[in-house]
Amino acid sequence: MTCVFCSIVTGAAPAIRIHEDDDYLAFLDIRPFTRGHTLVIPKRHTVDLTDTPPDTLAGLTVLGQRIAKAARVSGLHADGNNIAINDGKAAFQSVFHIHLHVVPRRTGDKLSFAKGLVLRRDPDREESARLLRAGLARLEHTAQD
Amino acid sequence: MTCVFCSIVTGAAPAIRIHEDDDYLAFLDIRPFTRGHTLVIPKRHTVDLTDTPPDTLAGLTVLGQRIAKAARVSGLHADGNNIAINDGKAAFQSVFHIHLHVVPRRTGDKLSFAKGLVLRRDPDREESARLLRAGLARLEHTAQD
Ligand SMILES: [Zn+2]
Ligand SMILES: [Zn+2]
Repeated sequence: MTCVFCSIVTGAAPAIRIHEDDDYLAFLDIRPFTRGHTLVIPKRHTVDLTDTPPDTLAGLTVLGQRIAKAARVSGLHADGNNIAINDGKAAFQSVFHIHLHVVPRRTGDKLSFAKGLVLRRDPDREESARLLRAGLARLEHTAQD
Repeated sequence: MTCVFCSIVTGAAPAIRIHEDDDYLAFLDIRPFTRGHTLVIPKRHTVDLTDTPPDTLAGLTVLGQRIAKAARVSGLHADGNNIAINDGKAAFQSVFHIHLHVVPRRTGDKLSFAKGLVLRRDPDREESARLLRAGLARLEHTAQD
């Protein structure tokens, strides 16, 4: 049994990457609720909140925050974000490698969000990723000012 | 303009408390999706992911993890949890003091969860809180073994 997210970490499985460092990887959800819907994972495999070390969870969330902020300053023009962890099968977890969802939202997008929950597609994923990466770079630039 | 969560922190507004320490407070959501639906807040007021310090967010999430684990070992018999932060009005945030939702879930509760999203009530909130507190105490006991 291979874990699809572990395969993404090693590069054996494809993904559109938003950010990578020694401990974490962020990539686009293949079935996005909205444009820029990103998953953040620790590279080291753990399943859910029961076995993930608190420090790992803290780092995961802080990276999720950076991506949420990036979505706001990016060309995706997010006005907010839903952040979520589905902890366990009973809570709709479908891949058993812990992951944090970052779902960029726009004011008044309620209907397109509902549609996104059903359709779960993005006609231009590469462009969404490019915009998010640019948002992250912009945040870093601002932090250095 | 007073913030209702700041009022809960000072004790001016009532809440059924699950956990309190110097920096954070956890209390039952007054309109729960499921039994034991808890909100975790930093005592120091910030609005959302744009102004909350990363360290504060990290501590908030780690406390949320403890409550999620407590729900599993508690008399609520949770099999999982949904963890969420609604970051901004566009993302359904309704109280503008950052908060993390911990929503205990049980295997096969999909229908009662859907019902809970509509009804948002718990016929015995004090008992739900008592069970969660007992779960937290049990976790602490286990950590000391
Ligand atoms: Zn894995
Ligand atoms: Zn407040």
